[in-house]
Amino acid sequence: MNVNVRGRPQHFRTVTFDHARNSVLLIEQRLLPHQFRIVTTKNFRETAAAITDMIVRGAGAIGATAAYGLAQGALAFRGNGLKKFSSHVKTVYQTLANARPTAVDPVNAMNDVRAAMHTGQTVEEQQSLALAAAEEFANEDVRHCSEIGKHGAKLIRNGMKILTHCNAGWLAFVDIGSATAPMYAAQSQGKTFHVFCDETRPRSQGATLTAWELAQQKVSHQIIADNAAGHLMQRGEIDLVIVGSDRTLGRTGEVTNKIGTYTKAVLAARHKIPFYVAIPISTIDWKLKRGFDIPIEERHESEVLGAWGAISNPRSKVRNPQSARRAYVRVANPASGARNPGFDVTPPELITGIITPLGIFKSKDLWRQRRRLGFQG
Amino acid sequence: MNVNVRGRPQHFRTVTFDHARNSVLLIEQRLLPHQFRIVTTKNFRETAAAITDMIVRGAGAIGATAAYGLAQGALAFRGNGLKKFSSHVKTVYQTLANARPTAVDPVNAMNDVRAAMHTGQTVEEQQSLALAAAEEFANEDVRHCSEIGKHGAKLIRNGMKILTHCNAGWLAFVDIGSATAPMYAAQSQGKTFHVFCDETRPRSQGATLTAWELAQQKVSHQIIADNAAGHLMQRGEIDLVIVGSDRTLGRTGEVTNKIGTYTKAVLAARHKIPFYVAIPISTIDWKLKRGFDIPIEERHESEVLGAWGAISNPRSKVRNPQSARRAYVRVANPASGARNPGFDVTPPELITGIITPLGIFKSKDLWRQRRRLGFQG
Repeated sequence: MNVNVRGRPQHFRTVTFDHARNSVLLIEQRLLPHQFRIVTTKNFRETAAAITDMIVRGAGAIGATAAYGLAQGALAFRGNGLKKFSSHVKTVYQTLANARPTAVDPVNAMNDVRAAMHTGQTVEEQQSLALAAAEEFANEDVRHCSEIGKHGAKLIRNGMKILTHCNAGWLAFVDIGSATAPMYAAQSQGKTFHVFCDETRPRSQGATLTAWELAQQKVSHQIIADNAAGHLMQRGEIDLVIVGSDRTLGRTGEVTNKIGTYTKAVLAARHKIPFYVAIPISTIDWKLKRGFDIPIEERHESEVLGAWGAISNPRSKVRNPQSARRAYVRVANPASGARNPGFDVTPPELITGIITPLGIFKSKDLWRQRRRLGFQG
Repeated sequence: MNVNVRGRPQHFRTVTFDHARNSVLLIEQRLLPHQFRIVTTKNFRETAAAITDMIVRGAGAIGATAAYGLAQGALAFRGNGLKKFSSHVKTVYQTLANARPTAVDPVNAMNDVRAAMHTGQTVEEQQSLALAAAEEFANEDVRHCSEIGKHGAKLIRNGMKILTHCNAGWLAFVDIGSATAPMYAAQSQGKTFHVFCDETRPRSQGATLTAWELAQQKVSHQIIADNAAGHLMQRGEIDLVIVGSDRTLGRTGEVTNKIGTYTKAVLAARHKIPFYVAIPISTIDWKLKRGFDIPIEERHESEVLGAWGAISNPRSKVRNPQSARRAYVRVANPASGARNPGFDVTPPELITGIITPLGIFKSKDLWRQRRRLGFQG
C-alpha cells in the first residue's frame, strides 16, 4: 500500500526481494508509527534475526520473509554439487524455522519453496526455482488479500462507520491486509466511510499500526479507547465491525484473535451490528475440535503495567517523530502485578460471517465448505 | 484506610482538617501511585486551587474539601460584625463553588455547612458551627461508605474473584470508598478473595489508584487490560463485578459511570455473573427522565493517544518511585486523532443490584423506594 515519503505517496510491500543484491527488504515495524524505515537483510541469518527481533510480524508477512530467506540462502551457495547444496539449504531452513518457533507460517511457506526446488535437477535450477517459488508465495498472499477485499467491500456502504480491533492490515501481510482489505477496496471504489480503530491495549497495535496504515492511505479514522466501543454502539455510531483472526477453527467456526475481540463481538451482537472476520484460508485450523483447547498465551505483565511511546507534550502532536525519544513509562502502581492473556476465542453465534478469498461464509458453514476451502484430510 | 509509610501501615483520610493551624490536609492524588504526599492548604484560596488542580478528586472527597474550605475561610475572619462576616463567607463560598464549576458535590456540601451556620447568632458561634458541620459532612461520608461495605460484604464469599472498573475507592471519598467498601469490609471479616482491576483507559485510574489502594490494604489483586475481562469471564475466572457510579437515575435505574462500565455489564449479563453498583445516596439524580439525555463529556484526545507514567525499565519494577521521572509518551500514530467519551450509561436490566448505605436494591426499584432513599419532591 502507499506510504507518504517526503509528502508523496509511494507504493511499498512489507517484504520484497532485491535479486541483484540478494537481499530482503523489510519495513522496520518496531519503529512505526513514529519512524518509517526500510531494513535490508544481506544474508539468511540476518533475515532470520529480523523475524526473531520482530522487525517483521504478522502471519503473511513472516511467511513471505521466511520464503525469501530460504531463496536468499540457496542463492548464496557458492560450492559444488547438489549434495553440499542440499545440506546448506537444510541449515538455512532450520535457521529460519527456529527464528520464531511457535509460528506455523514460516514453516508452511518454506515447505512450498522446498517442494518447488525439488523439481530442479541442478543447483542453478533449484536456486532459480526457489526464488520463483518465494515470489509466488508473496504474490499469492497479495492475491488472497485482494480477493478478501473484493468480497468484503460489498459490505461497506457510503457513510458507514466501521470498527476494527488490533492490526490485521497490510503490515501483517505482504500487502493490503485482511480486515483492512475491504476498506481499501471500498475506498478504491470511491466509497466514503469512517473507521474507529480500537487502541488495542496492552500492545496498542490499533493506535500505532492500524492508525498509521489508514493515515498513509488517507482513510478517515479515529482511535478510541477499548472501553469506548460499547458506548458508541449504544449511540448508533458503529454500523459494521471487521476484525482479523490468528486461528479459525474449521470444525466449529470459533475465531481466535487478539484479546478484546470477543468483547467487541458480544457488544455487536447485543446491538445487532454485523460482525465480520476477514481471514486468509491458511489461518483455518481443520484439526482442533473445540476453541476451549486453544492455548492462550499469557504474555509479560510489563505490557499491561505500562506503555511504550515517544516522549512528548500531550497537548501537541509529535512534531519531529524522527527525533522523538522512545521510552517505556510505568503507568500502574509499582507494587501491583498483572494478568496478560494475549488472545481470546469468539464463538460462531456472535459472528455474522467469515470473509475469505473465496467469498463470505457463515462461520458454522466452514466445515461443510471444507473441500472448497482447501481442506485435505 | 491504611497507607504504608516507611513499611508501617498508618490510617489516613483523603481529606482532614487541622484546627490548630486552620489548614486542610489532602492526599496529593496527582502523584499517586508513584509518590505518596500530604498537601497542606493554608487558606480557602489554596483549598479551592487544590480542587481546581485535581490534587483532590472524586465526589465525596471534593465535597468534604469544599465543606472544610468554607469552615477554614469562615474561621480566618478577623474583622468585626456579622454583616462583614457574611459578606466574607459569601466570597469564600463563591471561590470554592467556582473551583470546579460542573461538580455538584462542593455546592451541596457547602449548602449543608451554610445552613448549620445560620443557626448561630454571633461570628464566633457561626465559625464554630461551620467547622462542626464540615466535620459532620466528612464523618457522614465515611459512615455511608461503611454502611455500603456492610451490605455489600454479604455478596463476597471466600475464594471469589471480583472485577472492578475505574476507581470508586476511598481516594474518591473521605474514606473506605463505594465499590471498594464491600471488599474492605469482607477483608476485615477474614474473607479471602482476589480482585481484578480493569486498567481503565484512557486515564488508567484502575491501574493507578485502585491498584494502589488495594496494595496498601494488602488485598490480593491484579491489573488487567480492559480487553481481558471478557476472556476471563468466559473461562470462569470472574464471579462478581462491583463498580461505582457518577450519576444514577432514580426514575429509571440507569447508571452513568466511567467509560467501559457498560461493556463490563453487557459481558457480565452474557455470563450470568452478578453485576453490582455501589453508590452513596447523594449520587442519585431524581430529576432526569432518561439516560440518553445525560450529557457525555467528550474529553481531550491526548488521553487516548498516549499515557502518563514513570520512565522505567519495562522488565523491572520502579525501584525508587520518589525519584522516578514522570512523563507523557505519545503511543499513537502522530497524524491520527481520537474520540474520547468519558462516561457511558448502563441500563437497569444489566444491573443485578444497587448497593446503597440503606441496603441493596434492584435498580428498577429505586423510584418505588424513593421516600426511603431521601427523595423530597
